[in-house]
Amino acid sequence: MRIPFEKLYQEFLRVLLKKGFAEERAELCAGIFAESSRDGVYSHGLNKFPLFIRDIDKGHVHVNAAPEKVARFGAFERWDGNYGPGPFNAHFCMNRTIELAKEQGLGCVALRNTNHWMRGGTYGWQAADAGCLAVCFTNTMPNMPPWGGAEPRIGNNPLVIAVPRKGGHIVLDMAMSLFSYGKLGVTRSHGELLPVEGGHDLEGRLTRDPDAILKSMRPLPAGYWKGSGLAIMLDLLVTILSEGRSTSVIGEIDDEKGVSQCFFCLDAEKQHQPGYVEQITNTFIDYLHATIPLHEGESVYYPGERTLRTRQENIANGIPVDEKKWQQVLDM
Amino acid sequence: MRIPFEKLYQEFLRVLLKKGFAEERAELCAGIFAESSRDGVYSHGLNKFPLFIRDIDKGHVHVNAAPEKVARFGAFERWDGNYGPGPFNAHFCMNRTIELAKEQGLGCVALRNTNHWMRGGTYGWQAADAGCLAVCFTNTMPNMPPWGGAEPRIGNNPLVIAVPRKGGHIVLDMAMSLFSYGKLGVTRSHGELLPVEGGHDLEGRLTRDPDAILKSMRPLPAGYWKGSGLAIMLDLLVTILSEGRSTSVIGEIDDEKGVSQCFFCLDAEKQHQPGYVEQITNTFIDYLHATIPLHEGESVYYPGERTLRTRQENIANGIPVDEKKWQQVLDM
Repeated sequence: MRIPFEKLYQEFLRVLLKKGFAEERAELCAGIFAESSRDGVYSHGLNKFPLFIRDIDKGHVHVNAAPEKVARFGAFERWDGNYGPGPFNAHFCMNRTIELAKEQGLGCVALRNTNHWMRGGTYGWQAADAGCLAVCFTNTMPNMPPWGGAEPRIGNNPLVIAVPRKGGHIVLDMAMSLFSYGKLGVTRSHGELLPVEGGHDLEGRLTRDPDAILKSMRPLPAGYWKGSGLAIMLDLLVTILSEGRSTSVIGEIDDEKGVSQCFFCLDAEKQHQPGYVEQITNTFIDYLHATIPLHEGESVYYPGERTLRTRQENIANGIPVDEKKWQQVLDM
Repeated sequence: MRIPFEKLYQEFLRVLLKKGFAEERAELCAGIFAESSRDGVYSHGLNKFPLFIRDIDKGHVHVNAAPEKVARFGAFERWDGNYGPGPFNAHFCMNRTIELAKEQGLGCVALRNTNHWMRGGTYGWQAADAGCLAVCFTNTMPNMPPWGGAEPRIGNNPLVIAVPRKGGHIVLDMAMSLFSYGKLGVTRSHGELLPVEGGHDLEGRLTRDPDAILKSMRPLPAGYWKGSGLAIMLDLLVTILSEGRSTSVIGEIDDEKGVSQCFFCLDAEKQHQPGYVEQITNTFIDYLHATIPLHEGESVYYPGERTLRTRQENIANGIPVDEKKWQQVLDM
């Protein structure tokens, strides 16, 4: 089943207004959810919307809370999200980071007491649309064992890096776990194995069986010890910079609430001759595309390339939806 | 064979002075090489020293070149390394980044036309010693295939993240390949297999055989597609920010020469109440150490923890050296 973008957006908007969102932020959040599905990130678009509403109903998300500046040092600012909607707060803070970068060459904003930002790539595309190079990351509840550990004590702490380009931005949006819980669930429901080992089973053995990993709660960090180390460092950075909650503190309650985030931008338009970034990125992509593929018929992609293709396809043909989730939204 | 730190340092110093280094920078570089071995990073200490000298003899490294500021925008500066010694240039630019952070809360320096910085962790420890949170990264020659590719077209682009702590800094120093070429070589020489799949063989199959990977030149990015994407983004960031050479351009000559780097710091001492970072990091480490291990008798470590242990052991007992490499240095 495919739904036009506008229909998806209007339904999200209707529900958010019903939940008491002020009009402007309802429009912003409905747009972020609809655009995530449009770009093929279904897990963080329509499929996450019911959980977002559940967190509002539980009182974790304060729909009209306003972020507040708590400290400023030059091009660095610290904000408190006051438990407002994650996508709203993240969009607001990336916007502030872009402003700082436009004024001062670079900008950095740390945000505490916010909520799940949904699709991290949203804020990478936002910065790139404004002509900025950007890095942003968030912590999460404990959902992955550190390397050598048997129980989840670190977050999968998504990291986003964006480089602007007229022909389509280059945007990496990666969590520190090799596979998301969403991917594990879908693979299990199809009765399939993962393409490579994705976690440890209850006996402590590496496995490709998604069911064994969902039972053990031991998904593998991307690159084993490397993704574990990177997740640890990202959590420390966001916690310290925002003076907010670390993954360990977030883990003290069952639900994920009050996470910490960091946004960083450099104004590429101000810092370079016109056309410089365009030339570098296009040369880079040509070089990458010319790679001999490992297996015949395969291709090498730059980060974000397939996002752009999916976007074009979904705009043309409508956005594929999980019918149960869609009905759930229609019934709200 | 174990050599006292001071002896190692003095030999490096002697050779660098003989190669025409001015005294102060000879001392700095000799210290960086000796400290890398002292900290257990033998691959980038003594074992890399002969290659560093070879690059000087080839004219790739200009021993007394001075880095030059080419642009400034607020707390961001762009420097040209003028093909000076990599460790000298990187140390200089991290120092400049720390100064910017002390003045303005945060600082960022991009460096072009420099050379291999040897052990990346050096600059993380340097920033943490100055009370800064730091992130730095470098590109390299093409030495790894991008995900889906059969030939090396991306670098392993090491990334360093550091958080200061009185009881021992927390420092992550990771390349984007799962295993270094050094590790592949050592594992092959011992006739062993890698602990997990570390690359593709010439037939395009994943393998634990280091010999097959050294033959195919297809080491695996850490986290497969994830490490590949991250390596791509880091290369784009350093190239654009420094207006320097990308991995593709570095690859146009056979040797690695004229790489691009980026340094970023935040002054933790200025931005927080005294003791705040100490309390956060110590609480974090206690929480991490309390993780139930996956296998009995194993432990969970924070990034940099084992470095510190090795350092203490090597200071007490002398630094283990590869006797052939040591003799090579003595003969220089």
